[in-house]
Amino acid sequence: MSWEKNVRKVIPYTPGEQPKQADMIKLNTNECPYPPSPKVEEALKNFDADQLRLYPDPAIKKLTDAIAEYYHVGEEQVFVGVGSDDVLAMSFLTFFNDKENPILFPDITYSFYDVWAELYRIPYETQALDEEFRILPQDYQKKNGGVIFPNPNAPTGRMLPLSVIEQIIEANRDVVVIVDEAYIDFGGESAVPLTEKYDNLLVVQTFSKSRAMAGARIGFAIGDPKLIKYLNDVKFSFNSYTMDHITIETGTAAIQDGTYFKETVAKIVCTRERVSKELRKLGFQFADSSANFLFVTHPAHKAEDIQAMLRENHVYVRHFGGERICNYLRITIGTDDQMDRLLSLLNGYLGA
Amino acid sequence: MSWEKNVRKVIPYTPGEQPKQADMIKLNTNECPYPPSPKVEEALKNFDADQLRLYPDPAIKKLTDAIAEYYHVGEEQVFVGVGSDDVLAMSFLTFFNDKENPILFPDITYSFYDVWAELYRIPYETQALDEEFRILPQDYQKKNGGVIFPNPNAPTGRMLPLSVIEQIIEANRDVVVIVDEAYIDFGGESAVPLTEKYDNLLVVQTFSKSRAMAGARIGFAIGDPKLIKYLNDVKFSFNSYTMDHITIETGTAAIQDGTYFKETVAKIVCTRERVSKELRKLGFQFADSSANFLFVTHPAHKAEDIQAMLRENHVYVRHFGGERICNYLRITIGTDDQMDRLLSLLNGYLGA
Repeated sequence: MSWEKNVRKVIPYTPGEQPKQADMIKLNTNECPYPPSPKVEEALKNFDADQLRLYPDPAIKKLTDAIAEYYHVGEEQVFVGVGSDDVLAMSFLTFFNDKENPILFPDITYSFYDVWAELYRIPYETQALDEEFRILPQDYQKKNGGVIFPNPNAPTGRMLPLSVIEQIIEANRDVVVIVDEAYIDFGGESAVPLTEKYDNLLVVQTFSKSRAMAGARIGFAIGDPKLIKYLNDVKFSFNSYTMDHITIETGTAAIQDGTYFKETVAKIVCTRERVSKELRKLGFQFADSSANFLFVTHPAHKAEDIQAMLRENHVYVRHFGGERICNYLRITIGTDDQMDRLLSLLNGYLGA
Repeated sequence: MSWEKNVRKVIPYTPGEQPKQADMIKLNTNECPYPPSPKVEEALKNFDADQLRLYPDPAIKKLTDAIAEYYHVGEEQVFVGVGSDDVLAMSFLTFFNDKENPILFPDITYSFYDVWAELYRIPYETQALDEEFRILPQDYQKKNGGVIFPNPNAPTGRMLPLSVIEQIIEANRDVVVIVDEAYIDFGGESAVPLTEKYDNLLVVQTFSKSRAMAGARIGFAIGDPKLIKYLNDVKFSFNSYTMDHITIETGTAAIQDGTYFKETVAKIVCTRERVSKELRKLGFQFADSSANFLFVTHPAHKAEDIQAMLRENHVYVRHFGGERICNYLRITIGTDDQMDRLLSLLNGYLGA
């Protein structure tokens, strides 16, 4: 008998491509086209390398406190992890342990949810979005082991109003409901205030998009102190020191610079609105996006062909498999110059 | 019914205290008393903060390649994680999935092993060290779901020769055997060469001790490409981007500076040997250590009393609960000056 019999065999998540081309325009993984706050660079330059010999603070208190302050919640309501993927992975492990009733999430959504469910052998059942890619709240009002969905949803960019989110939570007081707000800063209304009312609601956010720090790996969750305590117990049963010293410093600097953050988000939203109009003029079809990307389809051209053309010109956009969305492209909002280059390529291609 | 019914309830690992006193001498968490390689500081200063807006390389190729080169193995034989705790947590999840036969590890050992086992509900059975705190290889020759032990063992500092390790592996070809070499650079002989012969052997090491980078969170495993592939599949099912950009750069700089590494380790070993002699003169009893700490007991004084006296003088050492070791202290090897202060305090206390 081989040792392989005891191996947990899984099919891992495939992250978006990380090409390294000097002149590329990278619109495939929803990164921010602008640098992080100048305070981040300052924190980095001020960091004393000698401190690396010491373990970081396992409670990540400095960053936790800064996030709590920014969101006007208590620090016992904040959990910090290595990107929101780490926060979500820990949350699945902590909260989704019903072996009989499936957890529920949309059929078209962040494609890591089913991977985590498979990793931990959690039963799950996907709920179909409607024809316009909307989440239907009534689909989440059946017996289940937990609920998770992004708001705005990815890769559709479609946003649920807070009243509908509350309706879903109300119907699921006996399980944990996770609202994954990776893209919330670009247009949606955050469910963070609802965490005061519902002790079973966990709201997860990230520094990777709106705070321009995908490379630093910072995510966080806000919820009832009891939820956060359970999450920390599991975290401390997994790795006492998940976040390194430098990231604690740079992350704190970033969250404290609220002005820069708002300016950056405003620029991206402004570009998104302009580009949305231009793409519609070119015949693309899509719902309004509340995120830093557009999820578009063209009635006359195959998504894969458009993607290939763009790639030949060193512009990277994301294409997903899956029956209902295989003719769509997800295009991250870049700088105005980058988007002009995209529009010009599309214009040439569609006109030809 | 409350949402709490589905929570994974655990008793987390308690990391050593991280006090923040300006004048303290910190000998409680086995950190390195010397700074990381000057190349680390250089890498830090050269890092362009703008790059933080982009996701890091999910394959962590630069650091993986550098580790592979240093240890003369292929890069497909190296797995990199966020500290060796992360590597071990992923390894437990990946390899220890036998629900019937328990995994085996020593009764006195790294106190995170049973925490991971509890976290993942893995059956385990501890094997008693002998009276001199030695691992007995025959204890690991029974039916089991996997084997893990540190070499040198912690907190005892006792080392197993490679021949005995090979004997344990030989007896367990049908499960994965993990040798946790967090302290190997201070005296033991690494089992890395055995990974060429045994495809079920995983050797785990860390940058936290001998490479003075506890604050950066870097650990790694070396093993057969098949083991590493399984481990990466689970990692990519957990979090695509576990390691941030900056750590990839500073870690690579550290591993490439072999000269500095060897000098640092030699200094610590030299201090350890000197302090060992002095402590024995003071009546302390302990086996020779192959690690960067000493695990000592005194026939005439309670360990907790000695710890309290040292703490009053801002010198921190580690005390563990547990029947067989509650009269022991684990003392990290600091600089010569730090150890002189420790010796002087002990001298005063024991003489009084």
